[in-house]
Amino acid sequence: MRHTISILIENTFGALTRVAGMFSGRGYNIDSLNVAPTHDPNVSRMTIVTRGDNATLEQVVGQLNKLVNVLEITDFREHEYIDRELVLVKVKVNAKTRAEVMQITDIFRTKIVDVQPKSMTIEVTGNETKVEKFIQLMGSFGVLDLTRTGKVALPRA
Amino acid sequence: MRHTISILIENTFGALTRVAGMFSGRGYNIDSLNVAPTHDPNVSRMTIVTRGDNATLEQVVGQLNKLVNVLEITDFREHEYIDRELVLVKVKVNAKTRAEVMQITDIFRTKIVDVQPKSMTIEVTGNETKVEKFIQLMGSFGVLDLTRTGKVALPRA
Repeated sequence: MRHTISILIENTFGALTRVAGMFSGRGYNIDSLNVAPTHDPNVSRMTIVTRGDNATLEQVVGQLNKLVNVLEITDFREHEYIDRELVLVKVKVNAKTRAEVMQITDIFRTKIVDVQPKSMTIEVTGNETKVEKFIQLMGSFGVLDLTRTGKVALPRA
Repeated sequence: MRHTISILIENTFGALTRVAGMFSGRGYNIDSLNVAPTHDPNVSRMTIVTRGDNATLEQVVGQLNKLVNVLEITDFREHEYIDRELVLVKVKVNAKTRAEVMQITDIFRTKIVDVQPKSMTIEVTGNETKVEKFIQLMGSFGVLDLTRTGKVALPRA
């Protein structure tokens, strides 16, 4: 099962290493992770997307709660939430395929952020389904390079 | 000095812990970090924004290069690059301030992704300067919650 977990931590880098170690030490797979400051520069928010059985995850969350630098843990299974991800993808194009790639970027409301003679770099934002569908479509033209932020999420309420 | 470093690593979570530990072990400050799979599911890309002196960073990069799971390191000081970040920010609004917040979101070409009676959640993407300016402007209305992905980057060429 897939889980999205958000962790508020005091802004010390050792905290990140301890949190990361807690997952890897239990052989828990991480699909994506990101961490950056919030509006309070002393506090960072980490978002982790992970897969595994519920029982193990509950153990991990229990351990995380004991870490002194961890201020709050949200498991988004329990909340209605908004999630987004950003991807930069560099696609191979030529005189023939450029228009076709531009059509698809238009349909997906993505932004072309760089054009080179043989490539275009496109910024995609959205939920996971949209982002993955777009990457899949670009695969038929040739993905030269790709970087994704991993998911961030906030509860609706 | 501020640095943006991109690391291609084999997709094992232990690798993340080792990389993170290499920075924290040397007391190197991390502003943001993200890691997610590339178009090759066996390979992840990690982007780290860090600050510190060049000599220490060169040492860290030298050590990273020795890790078996590290496939490639790009230091964006040396390249012309495109960078983007995504932020979800929940702002306090009332009947009086809602229109004003909407005006600013319009000017910044951001997206309103959720509206509640007393709050709005806004998706902002752009480079660091734009994102930080927007967060700063929202501060005067009251930021209730905020999550940012940290920077991702690709070389232009």
